Amino acid sequence: MQQVNLGMIGGGTVGSGVFHAWQKNGGLMAARLGVKLAFRNIAVKAFDEPRPYPIARSLMTTDWQEVVNDPQIQVVIELVGGCGIARTMILAALEKGKTVVTANKALLSAHGPDLFAAAAKSGANLYYEASVCGGIPIIKSLREGFVANQFPAIYGIVNGTCNYILSRMKAEGADFAAVLADAQKQGYAETPPDLDIDGFDAQHKIGILASLAHGFWVDHDKIHTEGIRDISKLDMEFAAKLGYTIKLLGIAKQISGGKPGIQASVYPTLIPNAHVLASVNGVFNACFVRGDIVGDTLFYGRGAGKDATASAVLSDVADAALDLKNGAKVRVPPFVAHAKNVRVVPMDEIVSRYYVRFSVVDKPGVLAKIAAVFAAAKIGISSVIQPEGHEGESVPLIFMIHDAPNAAMRRSLAKIAKLSVVKARPVMIRVESFE
Amino acid sequence: MQQVNLGMIGGGTVGSGVFHAWQKNGGLMAARLGVKLAFRNIAVKAFDEPRPYPIARSLMTTDWQEVVNDPQIQVVIELVGGCGIARTMILAALEKGKTVVTANKALLSAHGPDLFAAAAKSGANLYYEASVCGGIPIIKSLREGFVANQFPAIYGIVNGTCNYILSRMKAEGADFAAVLADAQKQGYAETPPDLDIDGFDAQHKIGILASLAHGFWVDHDKIHTEGIRDISKLDMEFAAKLGYTIKLLGIAKQISGGKPGIQASVYPTLIPNAHVLASVNGVFNACFVRGDIVGDTLFYGRGAGKDATASAVLSDVADAALDLKNGAKVRVPPFVAHAKNVRVVPMDEIVSRYYVRFSVVDKPGVLAKIAAVFAAAKIGISSVIQPEGHEGESVPLIFMIHDAPNAAMRRSLAKIAKLSVVKARPVMIRVESFE
Repeated sequence: MQQVNLGMIGGGTVGSGVFHAWQKNGGLMAARLGVKLAFRNIAVKAFDEPRPYPIARSLMTTDWQEVVNDPQIQVVIELVGGCGIARTMILAALEKGKTVVTANKALLSAHGPDLFAAAAKSGANLYYEASVCGGIPIIKSLREGFVANQFPAIYGIVNGTCNYILSRMKAEGADFAAVLADAQKQGYAETPPDLDIDGFDAQHKIGILASLAHGFWVDHDKIHTEGIRDISKLDMEFAAKLGYTIKLLGIAKQISGGKPGIQASVYPTLIPNAHVLASVNGVFNACFVRGDIVGDTLFYGRGAGKDATASAVLSDVADAALDLKNGAKVRVPPFVAHAKNVRVVPMDEIVSRYYVRFSVVDKPGVLAKIAAVFAAAKIGISSVIQPEGHEGESVPLIFMIHDAPNAAMRRSLAKIAKLSVVKARPVMIRVESFE
Repeated sequence: MQQVNLGMIGGGTVGSGVFHAWQKNGGLMAARLGVKLAFRNIAVKAFDEPRPYPIARSLMTTDWQEVVNDPQIQVVIELVGGCGIARTMILAALEKGKTVVTANKALLSAHGPDLFAAAAKSGANLYYEASVCGGIPIIKSLREGFVANQFPAIYGIVNGTCNYILSRMKAEGADFAAVLADAQKQGYAETPPDLDIDGFDAQHKIGILASLAHGFWVDHDKIHTEGIRDISKLDMEFAAKLGYTIKLLGIAKQISGGKPGIQASVYPTLIPNAHVLASVNGVFNACFVRGDIVGDTLFYGRGAGKDATASAVLSDVADAALDLKNGAKVRVPPFVAHAKNVRVVPMDEIVSRYYVRFSVVDKPGVLAKIAAVFAAAKIGISSVIQPEGHEGESVPLIFMIHDAPNAAMRRSLAKIAKLSVVKARPVMIRVESFE
């Protein structure tokens, strides 16, 4: 049986997970694929760094260049992460004509086109299934399973840390800060947590999905991104009373009205409880994909962790091995830029629905003053709720708003914030109806 | 750009759906794949048969042999269905060395190994993504996305007709017969409906998934199959009160205790409402896949219909075209039988949980008599519910049973049915806890 030789850079949590999965099921993979996969060398930070699964000492090196320079190694797995040395490693491997498998969403987000150009130049391939939604085969499904589709809408719960925090806030009626602190203690959130909770990790992932779906590389700077830092227990409760759950969504949508283009964004969203995404809890990820041919679909699974990520990494390795076995090192290029002159629609132009909560003084005329600002901006109010039972200087006043451009909404809220009857910065969370 | 020529046999609902999807997105597919797909000939029953999308007259023939014998055609799409002439057509195409794409689950179920042997003999490939779960890329995900996994458990809602009927029975508190009749009127169920509602369509599909997952072709005769004909409004209601939803599940499980093997079966199942499969309603399909590396995952989408099926057919066509473009007509064989001597565990040996409803006379001592039969068979009762408010000669008595072998359960129910206090055939529905 033909053999494909593997090298890996990164032998910590995920790296040892890949090695362990290969030890357990490598024989099965060979039987399924008709090609044997063999690890030759694994570059680690330190031989004795803590790792959940052991790696044979004889397979380890502390010099990553050994992996990249080994002429026997045909596939290099990069699990270092980040935009620093990992970039040098990947470019070095591609330059040597080696196929690269990576889980590095941050690097792809920042330098995707450069990496793909380097791969094209040397006729090598670059696989990245593990970069989005962990073990869920969402990259393969968009690229291959749904190759006959355009994608009117993709909605993803793509960050496990945020989903874990929001799920616990809802289930326990707890505050963001308390849940975050506990999540950090339990290893579900990093310290500092910014990359996750400010939405940047989700931005990297939805950027990759949007690019793949729409055939041009979406510049991460154009992805409007909000995190979950400002989601309060109070808004979670009001959302629940209104029949909604708050989730951080990555969104990639075709915008057809007005000047067409693609919406690519990340923000907390009120989701109707009846929608399947509202039931995705804890560290799980899910992608709701609407294809123009296939209709509505959903993919659900673990979005991170050593084992789920290992499953995705090894599926890329299998594809790479089949390519090599069949003598075509690149069956399809890692990314095909086929769409020209497509614009990313600025958030200001996007039409959304909104949940808005004001803290107002409890006296007559307040509602009229706020409603007047909305009316002047031609923003239609679909309902107003003033919950009972709130005492004190200020009371909450909640508006549900139908279909208004974000620019109009932003300007109106700025005006309303300045009214003397409004006691705190208005809270605005978009509402998604999945229509 | 290289071109791959397609022929299709079947130009009715699904066939015209494939043609329409190709008309709409064929250019996009070419851009993504780097290879042009061109229809050369489509064999139809009659030029003027009713079809939802038109097909150009110049592309149609009423002689399927023209498609198979055209030396220009490299890929033949078979959408005739059934186990008759479709088999001849596929074998003829494979013999000519053409790649075949089929949606024919009945044929695969009955003759899978013969078809794959024919493909292997002539070095052709046989793709079948559209045979299971319509547009959901479940075949590709099991074969490629999860290639590094063993599959401890797969649970699928794989028949849209049954799921539509059960969903409506639950939502409307309606009887099976009434919903079936209306479903037939509306085109959601065939006349006669047996293939669907007696579980045979689900049997074909779970058989294909089980075979692919476990590496040996599961003989359809060994798949224990029950349909939904006997599910009553009453049991639906009691299940709901107990926190469950009744779904028809296809199940493929690794059995490790006792004599190991594979469970492959189809039967109605009580699913805890909190489980994501309980929320899959209407004609939608879903597959819950547990991989030993990836963990729990779910795939959801339309399980049938011209468009969803077209999406799956064209994804297979794309794979076939990439194979041909790269000069390797078979990248991986359509089915790899790598597991030897694995047995399908007979239903009698399978350990399940159960919901059992008896109709009994309302007098003292009845419970003791029934409980004594279970006790003698060493079957543990986890709870007993005698609902209030039922009047008349007989009253319902419901047992929830933990972990008993099906043989013991079957024998005990036969004994209990003979008790003079029991007034009707006992109802037994298995309970799945997904542990």
